[in-house]
Amino acid sequence: RINEQRLWDTLMEMGDIGGTEKGGCNRLAGTDLDKQARDLFVSWCEACGCTVEVDKIGNIFARRSGTNNDLPAVGTGSHLDTQPTGGKFDGVFGVLSGVEVLRTLHENNIETPTAMEFSVWTNEEGSRFQPAMQGSGTYVGRFDLETELNKTDVNGIRLGDELERIGYLGEMELGSRHMGAFFEAHIEQGPILEDEEKAIGIVRLGQGIRWYNIEVVGRPSHSGTTPMHLRKDAMLTAAAIVTEMNAIALRHENGLGTVGFMQVWPNSRNTIPGNVKFSADLRNPKPDVLLTMHEELLAFCKEIALDHGVDVNVDPFWYFAPVEFNASDDVKAATEKLGYSHMDIYAGAGHDACYMADLVPTGMIFTPCLNGISHNEAEYSSPEECAAGANVLLHAMLEASER
Amino acid sequence: RINEQRLWDTLMEMGDIGGTEKGGCNRLAGTDLDKQARDLFVSWCEACGCTVEVDKIGNIFARRSGTNNDLPAVGTGSHLDTQPTGGKFDGVFGVLSGVEVLRTLHENNIETPTAMEFSVWTNEEGSRFQPAMQGSGTYVGRFDLETELNKTDVNGIRLGDELERIGYLGEMELGSRHMGAFFEAHIEQGPILEDEEKAIGIVRLGQGIRWYNIEVVGRPSHSGTTPMHLRKDAMLTAAAIVTEMNAIALRHENGLGTVGFMQVWPNSRNTIPGNVKFSADLRNPKPDVLLTMHEELLAFCKEIALDHGVDVNVDPFWYFAPVEFNASDDVKAATEKLGYSHMDIYAGAGHDACYMADLVPTGMIFTPCLNGISHNEAEYSSPEECAAGANVLLHAMLEASER
Ligand SMILES: NC(=O)NCCC(=O)O
Ligand SMILES: NC(=O)NCCC(=O)O
Repeated sequence: RINEQRLWDTLMEMGDIGGTEKGGCNRLAGTDLDKQARDLFVSWCEACGCTVEVDKIGNIFARRSGTNNDLPAVGTGSHLDTQPTGGKFDGVFGVLSGVEVLRTLHENNIETPTAMEFSVWTNEEGSRFQPAMQGSGTYVGRFDLETELNKTDVNGIRLGDELERIGYLGEMELGSRHMGAFFEAHIEQGPILEDEEKAIGIVRLGQGIRWYNIEVVGRPSHSGTTPMHLRKDAMLTAAAIVTEMNAIALRHENGLGTVGFMQVWPNSRNTIPGNVKFSADLRNPKPDVLLTMHEELLAFCKEIALDHGVDVNVDPFWYFAPVEFNASDDVKAATEKLGYSHMDIYAGAGHDACYMADLVPTGMIFTPCLNGISHNEAEYSSPEECAAGANVLLHAMLEASER
Repeated sequence: RINEQRLWDTLMEMGDIGGTEKGGCNRLAGTDLDKQARDLFVSWCEACGCTVEVDKIGNIFARRSGTNNDLPAVGTGSHLDTQPTGGKFDGVFGVLSGVEVLRTLHENNIETPTAMEFSVWTNEEGSRFQPAMQGSGTYVGRFDLETELNKTDVNGIRLGDELERIGYLGEMELGSRHMGAFFEAHIEQGPILEDEEKAIGIVRLGQGIRWYNIEVVGRPSHSGTTPMHLRKDAMLTAAAIVTEMNAIALRHENGLGTVGFMQVWPNSRNTIPGNVKFSADLRNPKPDVLLTMHEELLAFCKEIALDHGVDVNVDPFWYFAPVEFNASDDVKAATEKLGYSHMDIYAGAGHDACYMADLVPTGMIFTPCLNGISHNEAEYSSPEECAAGANVLLHAMLEASER
């Protein structure tokens, strides 16, 4: 079993890097704070004798040798970047559960049949740079390296430049780790485990996600002199699309629709907005339903553009297809061996493990979080809940290593 | 008659300060560009022998002596600040028509019975600092000086500090100019004069304006894991209010409703917005209708807050009551004397003259602008149209001075 108190202490220490007044964390990808968090992870892994490498999109891999290093390693990992108003657990819990597994093996001098790998993936959140799971998606070959390194934040700063600046633009080739299985522990970020009073969620599926950049181009003009019928009000059209996103979600079972990001131009209160740029995020566990939602959004945007006499440009730049996890049975076996209550569940959020499932048998372990709240500074998991997840991770990894 | 070419040249020279690629102007109140524009105005006035004073809210007054300086002066003026995507005419045309009147008197050695005053008012646009007509409103005593100097922009920078920094925080007492009449020339900013093919609009009324700061407080949470029925989505509520603003305007004759400014927090695409702050601008020429519109907005915000389970805080921080201009007959007499086509009109925008009407008989002169477009870089008035307005200003001022 892992050391509950030590795991908790590392979570709190890591959470201080970018820690907010309200007890959350603001540690965006590629920032100085991201560097501090990465450095701390590396120092912890090196203290346990790991060798550390960084790949061309900034993903970090720390390796602990096994008895037979020719066998494919067993990996785990998650991310250290957070939302601007994020918590201390989303992603970080997965990385530090890995560190806790590593420390447990190290202090008990446990030799594992295969090597063990502990990883940190670049920009999982998709908040500062898009899309989400950018590091793992690029690693497995879903995204083009150059394209991703050239992605910019709202201030025009390139991801590649930020990685270089913080010292995490590595040399290692993408997809080059020799792994035989991958596990990721993560807080559920939703209310189901708590409602059902289960300690562990065996994640069977990651739901589908579609992301859009939408731009409404109207005509800026005076709020006091432009009659209503002569307006091309980009804000009014944007508001109609926001409302429709909600309606689309409600029309479909398990549908979700969100507009989280918006920029208004020129953003002056007596100028009718000439341009509004915003994000759209549609999700569904069923790909056919998600496709219907997608088509409804496109149709609505087309219609409203005609209605309002404005241009609506929709860029559906990211489709993440639902993914099934095929190492869930290892997670289940470990959970049952340890005697934790559990249930099958699907992931509402995207995770690095979803992309790793492209390459190797992959499993995810969910733990409950308070009131199902995540992407919020109030995000919380108890020391006990965290320990249960880390214990399952340890035993799932051992199980896979021994096979 | 004034010098059409010279007026045009000054307009173009002034428009270069903050000039944009698209031929517009971005010269926000209190910026370095505002300073450059003010300095140029002062140099032009001083070159014609004026004495210049600046008051405690940064309004500039240039005075040309008359035959009898004990008589109240005749004033004119407007503003040099622009919208972020403004044109070269809004406000600037009024100030530079004044300069052209001054130059015409000066070069012809015309002695006027009373002194003539040429003014520039601080932050008329209300874009960077609120409300609009802040300089004239404070001058006439509608706003408290300290409160206004303490107003901050979106970056928290104080108006008072900016005025001091650019050298335009003066010593002169507010309301202390001895004026007997005030005239302001301005582009119409709407389509009516163009549609009716009139050179001059005799402005009879400035319509009523109500400005609001609205804040929706929801709860940030994950876009992929938060079921629709558990959300407190501040963006969705904001969109409903934007839509309702439009509906309120359409329900009332001559009603206008605009949301021009919005800030979303945390503005991350996979976090449901926890907080959305935005502006609302309602206008109507009839105060009772505007009051009904106001009440409809408040009622809707109350209702939607309950419906959506969020907080909606509405701050109705500015009410500008409709104002009648009581020196319109001087404008009409000058227009007819010069033989320009004209019509009565009301002002959709607020103007410094609207506040000056609190203190002295005031008149406004409107000139057409291309396609009625303003608060847009494409804003345009022809040299001829500008010259007509400046000629009417000259003769209205002379008329009032001689009385
Ligand atoms: N785990 C997590 O919050 N991932 C962010 C990507 C997304 O699901 O939007
Ligand atoms: N003239 C003008 O555009 N004034 C700005 C104030 C307003 O009407 O919103």
